Amino acid sequence: MKPFEIQTYLKEKKNLVDKNLDDLLPGKEEFPSQLHQAMRYCLFAGGKRLRPILSLAAAEAVGGDSNSIIREACAIELIHTYTLIHDDLPSMDNDDYRRGCLSTHKVFGEAIAILAGDALLAEAFSVLAGGLENGAHKPEKIVKIIKIVADACGSKGVMGGQVVDLESEGKVIDKDLLDYMHTHKTGRLITASVTLGAILGGGREEKIQRLKEYSTAIGFAFQITDDILDILGSTENLGKEVGSDSKKGKATYPGILGMNKAKKMQKVLFQQAIDALQPFDQKAEPLREIARLIIERNR
Amino acid sequence: MKPFEIQTYLKEKKNLVDKNLDDLLPGKEEFPSQLHQAMRYCLFAGGKRLRPILSLAAAEAVGGDSNSIIREACAIELIHTYTLIHDDLPSMDNDDYRRGCLSTHKVFGEAIAILAGDALLAEAFSVLAGGLENGAHKPEKIVKIIKIVADACGSKGVMGGQVVDLESEGKVIDKDLLDYMHTHKTGRLITASVTLGAILGGGREEKIQRLKEYSTAIGFAFQITDDILDILGSTENLGKEVGSDSKKGKATYPGILGMNKAKKMQKVLFQQAIDALQPFDQKAEPLREIARLIIERNR
Repeated sequence: MKPFEIQTYLKEKKNLVDKNLDDLLPGKEEFPSQLHQAMRYCLFAGGKRLRPILSLAAAEAVGGDSNSIIREACAIELIHTYTLIHDDLPSMDNDDYRRGCLSTHKVFGEAIAILAGDALLAEAFSVLAGGLENGAHKPEKIVKIIKIVADACGSKGVMGGQVVDLESEGKVIDKDLLDYMHTHKTGRLITASVTLGAILGGGREEKIQRLKEYSTAIGFAFQITDDILDILGSTENLGKEVGSDSKKGKATYPGILGMNKAKKMQKVLFQQAIDALQPFDQKAEPLREIARLIIERNR
Repeated sequence: MKPFEIQTYLKEKKNLVDKNLDDLLPGKEEFPSQLHQAMRYCLFAGGKRLRPILSLAAAEAVGGDSNSIIREACAIELIHTYTLIHDDLPSMDNDDYRRGCLSTHKVFGEAIAILAGDALLAEAFSVLAGGLENGAHKPEKIVKIIKIVADACGSKGVMGGQVVDLESEGKVIDKDLLDYMHTHKTGRLITASVTLGAILGGGREEKIQRLKEYSTAIGFAFQITDDILDILGSTENLGKEVGSDSKKGKATYPGILGMNKAKKMQKVLFQQAIDALQPFDQKAEPLREIARLIIERNR
């Protein structure tokens, strides 16, 4: 796959996801409109749609039709957006900017931001369960992916990572705890995205396992890259302040391992991701390119 | 059913729900323990378990086995608890007490309270989807109830009611908006509880519809009773300050209609609930008694 090809692929998929997100969510005039405006505000403030694109690419990698899982891929983006809205709240990370715009609570106030996040999470499960009415997927598979997604969002998933993140602020933590934090806070939803695509795309167990390994590696690489960019990036590219994590006393990989080791780890993880895709043919090429982009991105 | 019999029934079911909630949730020592402690704190701070008991009683009313839906009934209580935790937050209702104890954010701080609520919501869907592994229910039915529960929690359900509640504070609102607020904020989850029980209990469509009518009436009656108790009750019984709603400038039914009309409406709704149960035999007796208790309760 040539560089321009993956860019075209990502752009096409992003447009598909954006269009479907718009169709799935109630219009911003629908009552109660303040809530629907807030839900849409952060969702459409930007975002690369990495997670839903991973779902679509995983479905294609196992030979499935990505068009048949677009709703479910969008559900993942609803969840991702909900975590961002809550993460930015004053009592959490207290971030004024997100995706280059004012964060949701800065525009709508804390209460509406909390409720908009809550509603996005509920909406995601409604969208996933709505697959029954469409007849697009077998009910067994729908229940299976709902379980995977719900567990990824739970106290032993993303929420567990968030709590460790909060508890670790301003403290010296070891690499094990930092690993836990990121495999949960970021990794679990990325793995759920890929697994969802692989299952609904009709992948066999061995392939699903391989894709899980792939997702674990890129989830990790994604976070290390985030940490590196937080030190070396520019505010313009990031859409948030450079150094904002280390300023808050958050542990980072370059901080614990040193920049060189962190960059080496990035490369090892990239190779693990590529190796995990070894049994796949050219249909997995977008996944390979996404792994490359994750470590080469500048925002 | 004699008065002591319904009390015994409620006590037995409450114990069953409490035991199963304890089994379903991760232990408070499990990592990250602060999160699991916070999730359990509000859940086990008290509570009558009205919603899960309604699920169980609805399953029995249609001739089903309530033991086979205990997990799903518990999922509803997880959701109810999540709404209480978020509702009490400083940016929302700012309540220091709940179920007679300090509210979750007073004990664990705002951030953990928000995340504990989030995790309880995710856990509820994990529990509902977990029914597939048990083989207790057909996957079609599981997906169906997940859709009903998710919609009840969404922007056109409980969250919609919450936003209207927030927007209405200190304003004069009409009865239509107050109706919207309560049928959504309180009513939707009560209806979901009853519907879940009726569907999983194997009820036919006509019976399910009747039970929905029943649940709409008691959900409404429940809120009017809340409003009346907020004016006439005692702090000791309520577990929160008397008059706390009207003090916050919240619209109430006695405030809009006058106390006499509000009490009359309570009785009309009770009769609607009883009438909806007309095609049911003595297996619906607990539901009838619960309707009576809802309007006769003093807390």
